[in-house]
Amino acid sequence: MSDVRSITLIGSTGSIGTSTCSVARESRGRIRITGLAAHRSWEKMRDQVLEFRPDHVALVDEDAARKLRESLPAGIDCEIHSGADSLRHLAALPDTDTAICAVLGAAGIPPVVSAIRAGKDVGLANKEALVAGGAFITHLAREHGVTLIPIDSEHSAIFQCLRGERTEEIHQLVVTASGGPFRQFTPDRLQTVTRAEALDHPNWEMGEKITIDSASLMNKGLEVIEAHWLFGLDYTDIRVLVHPQSIIHSMVEFRDGSVIAQLGIADMRTPIQFAISFPERWEIGYLPRLDLAQIGSLTFEEPDMDRFPCLGLAFKCGKLGDTYPTVLNAANEIAVSRFLADRITFLDIPRVIEGVLETHDSLPASSLEEILEADGWARSEATRIADRVS
Amino acid sequence: MSDVRSITLIGSTGSIGTSTCSVARESRGRIRITGLAAHRSWEKMRDQVLEFRPDHVALVDEDAARKLRESLPAGIDCEIHSGADSLRHLAALPDTDTAICAVLGAAGIPPVVSAIRAGKDVGLANKEALVAGGAFITHLAREHGVTLIPIDSEHSAIFQCLRGERTEEIHQLVVTASGGPFRQFTPDRLQTVTRAEALDHPNWEMGEKITIDSASLMNKGLEVIEAHWLFGLDYTDIRVLVHPQSIIHSMVEFRDGSVIAQLGIADMRTPIQFAISFPERWEIGYLPRLDLAQIGSLTFEEPDMDRFPCLGLAFKCGKLGDTYPTVLNAANEIAVSRFLADRITFLDIPRVIEGVLETHDSLPASSLEEILEADGWARSEATRIADRVS
Repeated sequence: MSDVRSITLIGSTGSIGTSTCSVARESRGRIRITGLAAHRSWEKMRDQVLEFRPDHVALVDEDAARKLRESLPAGIDCEIHSGADSLRHLAALPDTDTAICAVLGAAGIPPVVSAIRAGKDVGLANKEALVAGGAFITHLAREHGVTLIPIDSEHSAIFQCLRGERTEEIHQLVVTASGGPFRQFTPDRLQTVTRAEALDHPNWEMGEKITIDSASLMNKGLEVIEAHWLFGLDYTDIRVLVHPQSIIHSMVEFRDGSVIAQLGIADMRTPIQFAISFPERWEIGYLPRLDLAQIGSLTFEEPDMDRFPCLGLAFKCGKLGDTYPTVLNAANEIAVSRFLADRITFLDIPRVIEGVLETHDSLPASSLEEILEADGWARSEATRIADRVS
Repeated sequence: MSDVRSITLIGSTGSIGTSTCSVARESRGRIRITGLAAHRSWEKMRDQVLEFRPDHVALVDEDAARKLRESLPAGIDCEIHSGADSLRHLAALPDTDTAICAVLGAAGIPPVVSAIRAGKDVGLANKEALVAGGAFITHLAREHGVTLIPIDSEHSAIFQCLRGERTEEIHQLVVTASGGPFRQFTPDRLQTVTRAEALDHPNWEMGEKITIDSASLMNKGLEVIEAHWLFGLDYTDIRVLVHPQSIIHSMVEFRDGSVIAQLGIADMRTPIQFAISFPERWEIGYLPRLDLAQIGSLTFEEPDMDRFPCLGLAFKCGKLGDTYPTVLNAANEIAVSRFLADRITFLDIPRVIEGVLETHDSLPASSLEEILEADGWARSEATRIADRVS
């Protein structure tokens, strides 16, 4: 493998995207960004283009693409793509080793599919590809001999714990959860939590949607579904453990009683770099090192599925299979956006999702079309229910 | 690899030996004991012979061997060896896959050498082979293409954390230490600790000598030296971390900031079985599983080398190299035996060792003869100093 890794970064202006840019910046030339893609943040994109000089850039929004084109100084040799297909196009660029897929939501699925079909290794930061389309995506990756390298800290941890190990010797996966800002709230107090309280995550700096999912434990539920597909384990062999310090990023318990864990500071640049440097590990000199003596204590407790019903809903949908996880995810996205708009309460989030699940007629979720159809249905159904609630 | 693993167990009547018998007993036929060897506990050995029906048995003590021979009922088809060479002979039995070397002290070194020369994989529970003769033993193992599989929980943990990883990507090894029963004692209180207090280890059931070494942190120091040889790391890249619950058995920190840890309950049967089943992991249904939610909290602190000077002495001797670790270990054995006989105080242990180290003229430690010579010299010197102190 060459000393320089070429990546295409799909979703470069979001939280994972900017962290990936930071990893590339600090890599002292070991990471070359071949392509950058995003939806519409053309000003941020302009800065990234000027810094990283990719060969290709994509902005889905035509107007933003035009502004980007006009704002770039003469002499920047870079092809600018736009429109709905541009993300897919960039994910499959011939000069790329790894496609980092960091577009949030269902919109992030098509570029993942495109990267796999082009035989690129995929650094996977988009949850929906596996939550909504796990069977389809993992089958496709096997078919194309592509490695899906998870970027979520929990799945990166499990991926690392499994190096040199055998899947059939796993007893269970232990996915750790910070428990979110409401971990110790009573059911009464949960009734009245605000948008601002939910956005105040104790350990991780993340986007708004995922921060709310952390507070409701839906994020952990979606991660359980992802873990099921990434590592091929039954839901009965995946356990969630609350660990408020977020130092142990997840664990694998083997049948001989040994537990292998991955630990680290809470900084997404570690799993991002790992996804790019894999199978190697590169020095990260610019991040502080984990100091357990200074941290002093790591604590653990069982998750409370009564106070946080989203976690139980995720396990339930995972076990039901087919398009149930797709619908869970889509309904959650709508409910969270309504909560962020102060239109429904925090406890309405699981209520909206349950309402949608009740009327769902599931499909096998074996093609991108079926997945997107179920996704669309769940969104309109969730909108209808959320409107009634608010 | 066949479904049944044949082992020879050198040191079968001691603490690790009886735990290994328990692992074999519970293995439902997957482990066949080809040979059993010990020093003189003929009654315990008789029970083991009757249960496991090995082809060969050795007792170093001629008198004990005679008693064993006489006590075995007719029809037990088993060759009984005796004398100084019998341990070495058993370690090299042709029908054995793995030699478990669990004889304590310098007496445990020759069987390890013999097993390696015969091309057996070695399950290594004897510390002295690596502490006193690390350069020689690891060179010999490489020469014969033999894997040294550590049985100490700390080294087994590191060995497991390194599966699928590259040595050159290690930042440091983090060897955990319970801190022993005197972890929170003041220097004054340490002056008056008794034999009984030192033998009361918080987490592990072990032999007397190693329990005292746990209390003085010399055990951890010897483990640092072992880790140096087993994993080829400089002493500056090996750190000791006090972790009173002994749940994280040790860790490896990689250069990308990721830390991989191995966790488990405090039961030696896990690392013993791993050494036998390696590279596989076998189900251990009879042991309780680790439950972190029930444990609740794991804590960490820096070791205090002022109150526990044995740890500093071990690092110092490790760095000095040659026969210094040999002498450290031998002097410690004498000092501990004197402490166990109530002849010197707990704080005299490091004083005796320091006295011996001061007058040592080191040798390269490149042959078994040099090692045993330095070992013998250190024992008589330590005896002389301990007599003066007591």
